[in-house]
Amino acid sequence: MTTDIVTSRDSPLDRFIAVIPAGGVGTRLWPLSRAAAPKFLHDLTGSGSTLLRATYDRLEPLAGRGMLVVTGVAHRNAVCSQLPEIGEADLVLESEPKDSGAAIGLAAAILYQRDPEIIMGSFAADQVISPDELFQDAVREAIHTAAAGKIVTIGIKPTHPSTGFGYIRSGENLAIAKAPSAQSVVEFVEKPSEDVAQQYVDSGEYVWNAGMFVAPVSLMLKHLEANQPELFKGLTEIAEAWDTPERDEVTARLWPTLPKIAIDYAVAEPAAAAGDVAVVPGTFRWDDVGDFASVGRLNSAREVDDVTVLGEGARVFTENASGVVVTDTKRVIALIGIKDVVIVDTPDALLVTTMANSQRVKAAVDALKASGDTDVL
Amino acid sequence: MTTDIVTSRDSPLDRFIAVIPAGGVGTRLWPLSRAAAPKFLHDLTGSGSTLLRATYDRLEPLAGRGMLVVTGVAHRNAVCSQLPEIGEADLVLESEPKDSGAAIGLAAAILYQRDPEIIMGSFAADQVISPDELFQDAVREAIHTAAAGKIVTIGIKPTHPSTGFGYIRSGENLAIAKAPSAQSVVEFVEKPSEDVAQQYVDSGEYVWNAGMFVAPVSLMLKHLEANQPELFKGLTEIAEAWDTPERDEVTARLWPTLPKIAIDYAVAEPAAAAGDVAVVPGTFRWDDVGDFASVGRLNSAREVDDVTVLGEGARVFTENASGVVVTDTKRVIALIGIKDVVIVDTPDALLVTTMANSQRVKAAVDALKASGDTDVL
Repeated sequence: MTTDIVTSRDSPLDRFIAVIPAGGVGTRLWPLSRAAAPKFLHDLTGSGSTLLRATYDRLEPLAGRGMLVVTGVAHRNAVCSQLPEIGEADLVLESEPKDSGAAIGLAAAILYQRDPEIIMGSFAADQVISPDELFQDAVREAIHTAAAGKIVTIGIKPTHPSTGFGYIRSGENLAIAKAPSAQSVVEFVEKPSEDVAQQYVDSGEYVWNAGMFVAPVSLMLKHLEANQPELFKGLTEIAEAWDTPERDEVTARLWPTLPKIAIDYAVAEPAAAAGDVAVVPGTFRWDDVGDFASVGRLNSAREVDDVTVLGEGARVFTENASGVVVTDTKRVIALIGIKDVVIVDTPDALLVTTMANSQRVKAAVDALKASGDTDVL
Repeated sequence: MTTDIVTSRDSPLDRFIAVIPAGGVGTRLWPLSRAAAPKFLHDLTGSGSTLLRATYDRLEPLAGRGMLVVTGVAHRNAVCSQLPEIGEADLVLESEPKDSGAAIGLAAAILYQRDPEIIMGSFAADQVISPDELFQDAVREAIHTAAAGKIVTIGIKPTHPSTGFGYIRSGENLAIAKAPSAQSVVEFVEKPSEDVAQQYVDSGEYVWNAGMFVAPVSLMLKHLEANQPELFKGLTEIAEAWDTPERDEVTARLWPTLPKIAIDYAVAEPAAAAGDVAVVPGTFRWDDVGDFASVGRLNSAREVDDVTVLGEGARVFTENASGVVVTDTKRVIALIGIKDVVIVDTPDALLVTTMANSQRVKAAVDALKASGDTDVL
């Protein structure tokens, strides 16, 4: 379909392009994260970088300027302001959310049009990872494994029997050069019960599914075509028009018609069943910052007594208190004799809950939505 | 000293003037109550009236326009705005706080100068009372008792063995006309332990000291002169100049030199020892709103599930929560899975504590003071 322009490349690392899906409102992080300012636009770790900026910086040593950011049109200005390096060609804007199958599939299809030899890596913009070097080591192994014809997930060595993550069961070592730890994937398993999670951790055969993967774009599209032919057809048509004057017309016509499906179901699981998926276990620290309890566990935040404080202007006073305070106001916040509390203080909304209840924030957002108080969502 | 101009009055009720000491920062109600806006200027009950306004309205049927408000110069505008009825002659402004002995003593001395037959009643501006009629019945009995030559406290029938209030031990009935429940006072006792408080309640002989009293101004001054001659002398000199062009000069010279002492020690306790104090038990509901836990008990506030909400613009959402929310912002406040919490939300300061810890708010204020964060105090 295109001429082979990449045969002279020495290393698969030279064919690597990083894709950053920057989507998801992060409802469980309301009121800090909200429709107009989702969590990837925030500094949730007290590092001084937003999650999006930190994701870009973590990938830059591997991908250089070879990055594609996929986000909603509403976030265009915020994303461009946080990532001044990226150009028009590096930004894929969704007019409406269509789940990860369409978002990552479109990135794969666009990259395939630009160069069918590209190895893409997809890394969500809202995860916290450290140290960067261990992450980069794992991605390098994944790129070498992908070059051998695999869709490669990066699995996280579990630190506890989490019931909030999916797991990946790994099989035999694949004996790939420059990827000594790459293993076959036996199966993906959904979020388990606590007992089952403990068995997984004890067995040593399971890693957390962090939703990261590295793959040749051609292999991604092959499995997408096999499993979701309608989605594949629409994405290919959009991708063919993408770098032409027809982009807007074709996208406006086709994007709204695409099916909504997660990339896991559209590609990863059927590819695993076909024996095409590998896993590289990562030993870096990883958190998906799914709720404020996980914000509290991030160790780069400031501690005031036993209270983790996030927010530049924070003026927090505590007496016999513990928990997490996240603020983007400059108000004085005084905590007295209250334990494991979660306080999120924004100019127009205040959340007070406990570490144990922080997963239930979504319910509050749903209640606000139902009551018509959508100005703060 | 003055001519007797009051012999023609039919009832001691006609000689009654109400004094409203409106002072005290209410530190334990920070950040709602603060130096620039103390608690009496707030609506803490959700009634639509501030504590000061409600105090005035409760006394008006007894005193008519015969009222004197004693407050700090800083609160002049707020007080006049909440009580547009009061004139210049009804306002006693303190240039600096000098405790209740000087504040109430000055009111007594000024009233004595205006008319030595006056019976004054002193009622703090920061208490919550209901129903007004039972309160007024008790004050009427107290006025008749005062006319018989007593300093009359109004005691509150205890509803529980509080360790936060002082108690009054009552003696025999005084058999005063139109004051059937007036009794002698055996002694004032300081805040007791819980065991002792329970004995007090069980005995039926004790009432809470609500700090209210009714007395002939001449009798007040007689005891003040006997027990605090220096304070009496200074106050008399100020009072003689009060309704003259010399007021400012004399006050500025003498007020700062006056000793600081509570009216209890300066007058009430020595007068009780001399057998000059009576008590009228009040059966009305009374709360001194000393902390946010007591704010939560005030029953005129709005309930959102199990959360008591105070604040006109409040937009509170709760799920499995209980406690008190006091807000003077219009922010959305969401409480999820947190029990017995106290949240006070103001534009520049936020307090989060528990009902059980609400007495400790003062410690936070002290810590802020020590740290130099006095802008929010």
